[in-house]
Amino acid sequence: MGYEISFGARVRKSVFFDKTVENGVAAFSVYNHMLMPTSYGDPVAEYWRLVSGVSMWDVAVERQIQLQGPDAEHLARLLTPRNLGEIVPGQGRYVPMCDHDGRLINDPVLLPVEKDRYWISIADSDMIYWARAIAAERGLAVTVSEPDVSPLAVQGPKAIEVVAGLFGAWVRDLGYFAFREIEHEGIPLVVARSGWSKQRGYELYLMDGSKAGQLWDIVKDAGEAYEIKPGCPNYIERIESGLISYGADTDDDTNPFEMGLGKFVDCEQEVDFVGKEALTKIRDEGAKRRFTGFFIDAELPVMAQEKWMLSHGGDTAGFISATCYSPGLERFIGIGLVSNKIADGEGALVAATPYGEVPATPASLPFPVPWQRFRH
Amino acid sequence: MGYEISFGARVRKSVFFDKTVENGVAAFSVYNHMLMPTSYGDPVAEYWRLVSGVSMWDVAVERQIQLQGPDAEHLARLLTPRNLGEIVPGQGRYVPMCDHDGRLINDPVLLPVEKDRYWISIADSDMIYWARAIAAERGLAVTVSEPDVSPLAVQGPKAIEVVAGLFGAWVRDLGYFAFREIEHEGIPLVVARSGWSKQRGYELYLMDGSKAGQLWDIVKDAGEAYEIKPGCPNYIERIESGLISYGADTDDDTNPFEMGLGKFVDCEQEVDFVGKEALTKIRDEGAKRRFTGFFIDAELPVMAQEKWMLSHGGDTAGFISATCYSPGLERFIGIGLVSNKIADGEGALVAATPYGEVPATPASLPFPVPWQRFRH
Repeated sequence: MGYEISFGARVRKSVFFDKTVENGVAAFSVYNHMLMPTSYGDPVAEYWRLVSGVSMWDVAVERQIQLQGPDAEHLARLLTPRNLGEIVPGQGRYVPMCDHDGRLINDPVLLPVEKDRYWISIADSDMIYWARAIAAERGLAVTVSEPDVSPLAVQGPKAIEVVAGLFGAWVRDLGYFAFREIEHEGIPLVVARSGWSKQRGYELYLMDGSKAGQLWDIVKDAGEAYEIKPGCPNYIERIESGLISYGADTDDDTNPFEMGLGKFVDCEQEVDFVGKEALTKIRDEGAKRRFTGFFIDAELPVMAQEKWMLSHGGDTAGFISATCYSPGLERFIGIGLVSNKIADGEGALVAATPYGEVPATPASLPFPVPWQRFRH
Repeated sequence: MGYEISFGARVRKSVFFDKTVENGVAAFSVYNHMLMPTSYGDPVAEYWRLVSGVSMWDVAVERQIQLQGPDAEHLARLLTPRNLGEIVPGQGRYVPMCDHDGRLINDPVLLPVEKDRYWISIADSDMIYWARAIAAERGLAVTVSEPDVSPLAVQGPKAIEVVAGLFGAWVRDLGYFAFREIEHEGIPLVVARSGWSKQRGYELYLMDGSKAGQLWDIVKDAGEAYEIKPGCPNYIERIESGLISYGADTDDDTNPFEMGLGKFVDCEQEVDFVGKEALTKIRDEGAKRRFTGFFIDAELPVMAQEKWMLSHGGDTAGFISATCYSPGLERFIGIGLVSNKIADGEGALVAATPYGEVPATPASLPFPVPWQRFRH
């Protein structure tokens, strides 16, 4: 392609921006009204580093929505259909969020920082307004704000060595989505075992934007022995792993059951969470679409970053939201949202692409790549 | 600069995308999760065309939030502090939106399409979730959706000739923000007198995305006699005119009084709109900051698309959200949000820029450029 991205005050820069430039960032997208690095020039090399080594990512675009006050826990429970059971500070969870009609509106990670203070680490939609609306309409005693917190991800099988080497052996015992608040060389951080890949990884939630350059250099130096390099949320790995990208894989009428997130919807819990009635109905009726993988028997670009409509025998069948050449499987694959009835029927679906019509055969997620992968 | 923008399903393409490519689009930003053309390669030439000729813009990123149903009017009145008085289908209005704490969360145009059907033509924040939250929490009988509507703007002093030539002499009598629904060569449209410039302009709200190419060509052909060319919301003209860019000129704690929008806040009306109590308090206490222009006596880039912090005597004073070289005034100007106390004090403020500290002297908006300008 080769179109330039415009800068301006409306789209904020990350606190790590200068460091990403210094390290050769080549492309950006916009995510939560911020510039998000998407390439350092060689996405396939970045893929191999992610699945076999270690990579560091500016993911400050994962903004935190902070809920603070006596009703913070109550609001957190209202905002997700997931049954949060006992909430333990220091143990995060993946918490899909739905509106009153059961539509998926974000799929963030909830971090209970303290008893009365929560962070929601959001995907790409303006959940600060949403959380404020629900809190205010219900008269809750909670302040909803965006704190000075910017995550830096360290991802890949060698990430554990880098992060444990920096902060101590306790990092090795962190369970999935567990986190700990620390100070390191004067830098206030939350160290969490998390990240948008299925490789073992960590996210360092920097709590003082003025120390971004210092943190970046510390991580880069510590990773040198493991050949760490800057990278980005990886387009190829996320397709192989079937990780959801909210807003790409979803449309305006997607429910969590369609996305394979039914296990995070508990309509039997006592909490009267937003969307309970609608989700109960959708659950009882059964989802009509599903998020699935596809094998695509055609020659395509290595990363065709486009949305393609799917059909079957002339009928609309859904859409493909991302395709790539899978280095792990050595063939073209994709992910998308498709009608159950059609996916369960006979024959391949047809994707309408700029490269002509190509056949797409449904396949289970995640794709069976041969290397180590942590399942969450 | 020169960074590439990444594509992908998460950031949608406009229905006019192919036409903008065919016409030489050079750069994009992202607005409401969509690609927004921001340059065809020569922004200064685009400026001159806008203030003296006619320009056509893909502004499909101005998404419409449709409120439909018996409570549509009630919801519209709840969503803005503006007193809507008598609502007449066909007459749009600029309607700042605030949250319960009186913070500005969008500054859209409201179009009453029919008695029970409204469009909110939004700036860059996810107001569909907000509108749905308020509607559902209050149990209103209204459906909130995003219809297949994509505005194409025709802006500049010669826009009236192009649009009246195409659709008829009635266009000349359209008052500001008035609109009419028509069909032209089989294309369903709403023709409105509006647009994000202070030149006389129109927006054609295309109601069938599949006819985008056809509409583009019709407008381009009709504009040929007036030397129409593709352009974009113009960075320079909007600074001279003091037009607000939500998200650029505002921060997370900006109220409408600060932005000079106090005339659109009616706390005495009967409607119990969202934010009424908070806005009454802010009104009574008086705004502490104001949106203002600046004269900048320094050599800067023609368009320095960055946010700069302002100080005065070592104290934080606010920020500048956009600066440019004004062809109309032949000097550097900017806009920003600054503490009243400091703006009313003595001496220039100081902006911290990558080009060193530069003096910034408050100036009234809009800037006194010498040419014709329509005041709304």
